[in-house]
Amino acid sequence: MAGEILLSELREQPRAVGRLVENNGEIAVVAAQMTKLQPRAVRIVGHGSSDNAASYGVYAFGLLPAWTAFRDSISLSIYYGADIEFRNSVVIALSQSGQTQDVVEYVEYARARGAFTVAMTNEHASELASAAEAIVPLHAGPELSIAATKTYTNQLAALYLLAAHAAGYGSRSVEELAVVCDVLERTLASSEPVAEQTAMAFAYVGRMFVVGRGVEYATAREIALKLTEVCRIAAEPLTATALAHGPVAAVDPLFPIWIVATDDAAIGAAVAAAEAARAAGATILASGSGTDALRECSYRLPTDPVPTPLLAPVVSVIPGQLFARALALAKGLDPDHPSGLRKVTLVP
Amino acid sequence: MAGEILLSELREQPRAVGRLVENNGEIAVVAAQMTKLQPRAVRIVGHGSSDNAASYGVYAFGLLPAWTAFRDSISLSIYYGADIEFRNSVVIALSQSGQTQDVVEYVEYARARGAFTVAMTNEHASELASAAEAIVPLHAGPELSIAATKTYTNQLAALYLLAAHAAGYGSRSVEELAVVCDVLERTLASSEPVAEQTAMAFAYVGRMFVVGRGVEYATAREIALKLTEVCRIAAEPLTATALAHGPVAAVDPLFPIWIVATDDAAIGAAVAAAEAARAAGATILASGSGTDALRECSYRLPTDPVPTPLLAPVVSVIPGQLFARALALAKGLDPDHPSGLRKVTLVP
Repeated sequence: MAGEILLSELREQPRAVGRLVENNGEIAVVAAQMTKLQPRAVRIVGHGSSDNAASYGVYAFGLLPAWTAFRDSISLSIYYGADIEFRNSVVIALSQSGQTQDVVEYVEYARARGAFTVAMTNEHASELASAAEAIVPLHAGPELSIAATKTYTNQLAALYLLAAHAAGYGSRSVEELAVVCDVLERTLASSEPVAEQTAMAFAYVGRMFVVGRGVEYATAREIALKLTEVCRIAAEPLTATALAHGPVAAVDPLFPIWIVATDDAAIGAAVAAAEAARAAGATILASGSGTDALRECSYRLPTDPVPTPLLAPVVSVIPGQLFARALALAKGLDPDHPSGLRKVTLVP
Repeated sequence: MAGEILLSELREQPRAVGRLVENNGEIAVVAAQMTKLQPRAVRIVGHGSSDNAASYGVYAFGLLPAWTAFRDSISLSIYYGADIEFRNSVVIALSQSGQTQDVVEYVEYARARGAFTVAMTNEHASELASAAEAIVPLHAGPELSIAATKTYTNQLAALYLLAAHAAGYGSRSVEELAVVCDVLERTLASSEPVAEQTAMAFAYVGRMFVVGRGVEYATAREIALKLTEVCRIAAEPLTATALAHGPVAAVDPLFPIWIVATDDAAIGAAVAAAEAARAAGATILASGSGTDALRECSYRLPTDPVPTPLLAPVVSVIPGQLFARALALAKGLDPDHPSGLRKVTLVP
């Protein structure tokens, strides 16, 4: 049946995170190397889902070891050869396949200039793994669906573990992630029927905004990417604040807004976004642990809370993955094989 | 007539840049303060068009003084209170009005923790200007249209001047920008009729991707924002590489792709994006100084080259501004007053 590969892989996510946690000793070793450097900057790079996970890394490193982390520009180095100082920098390069060409080139460039380079990948025998000094294996297992699911959640979990070990919270983070695995199981079970039912109402939608702020911006980006590649929706991710700075002008009842609302310090921004979206006449779908705070929404895909708000994104993406699969099926598309995509993207 | 305010302001851009250049002494003073610090990081923040200009700043500082610059997370500090090291950092806060609430809060937070803070704004009496240690006045003059035009180009020019002064190229940058003003005049004159003619063919388009790589990613973001807020198109900006990592699956003949193609070191990525877009059956519109390299496009909005590729974005945005205005008129929308927007965005 169409969509079975994607479904089995997204259902596998609690076990995939569990495998990563079992192997967290590998991550602790890399974290210790990073801590010794006391890096001035953590430069995170990747494309697609990996770049979305990078958005999460900014918060994991910013909040746990309190390091300055950012999604670095690849093209600044690769195309323009910028003479930037890479010593005292850590590079974390994310790629499911380890074959993304410009990410490999960026790692080579940064390493030659003195950065400590870490490859975070499913393929420990890949070009990226060879190019980097250290490897964080993702242990997601073979991912056959074109759309990434378990690789993405394991990237988030690996970034969390790496940041937590660097901050001296290694053993606590392992306990927290064990709880997250249970929440993932429950959320998968509870969200699947709700996502299927909700998706039906979106069968004729061609455009969406997906809004998230703070740690959930990564989730907004990843849900938008799933909707785009699996459902052929023009789904743009926005921060709650960016929505009000222009894009809200485009919405109407057939241009719905998905708001990722997590019950954390940034929930006020999600509430304000919902009010702005509602005032503009948009239909609102809310997901996450904070959907109750959004009175304006027509549809809700709630998730359970996790031990710490920083871990919420590992769970918050689940309703988006399930919704995207269900909507693709409702539209007669094959969620396992989106048109025009291959698993490994080799273009420059 | 509808669209006259936007048109007069976008036509004013060469003169607005000229005013900024005349006042570049102010920028040289701030650059000298920055250079004395030899900052480890240049943290650039803003929303909407200002955030798009921030994307450009990453390249200006990376390529001229070879400083590490990035668009910093505002929420990491404002909502989550991250304990990040701000000493040895420069903050550049971009806001047309100087009233953007969380940008002001971020500047206060960073300054209290030891960052050297610079407000880049049109309003030197604003809250943002008071919060920051140094001010770079934009000299764009009153901007009455809701959609930013001359503020954006002056932000790019100001970032260029600041980075060039910091790198010791101050006087050369002034000469270069004088040439850019001439190119802007010519591009405005030559692009206006072509943009109007081309826009007609897009009257029924509801979704677009706008692709740019390297220095032109800022342009792709800004053109996409104009199309979204002025024309109510769901227009998502993507890097050339991100397009291939998923989103290309969504395109079809009624989901066109705009490619910003500048004749610089990243042109290969634009060419590859055009090939991928064409293979997916998308209609392609190309703009910039490198459109001739893209054989696949159905529509072209060419611009003249500038003295250095890093200055290309100041000119590359012009066809997008003109196209957005023309398309809004073709769709019966008022380009001066997009629905649901106000000039100063005060939401959190």
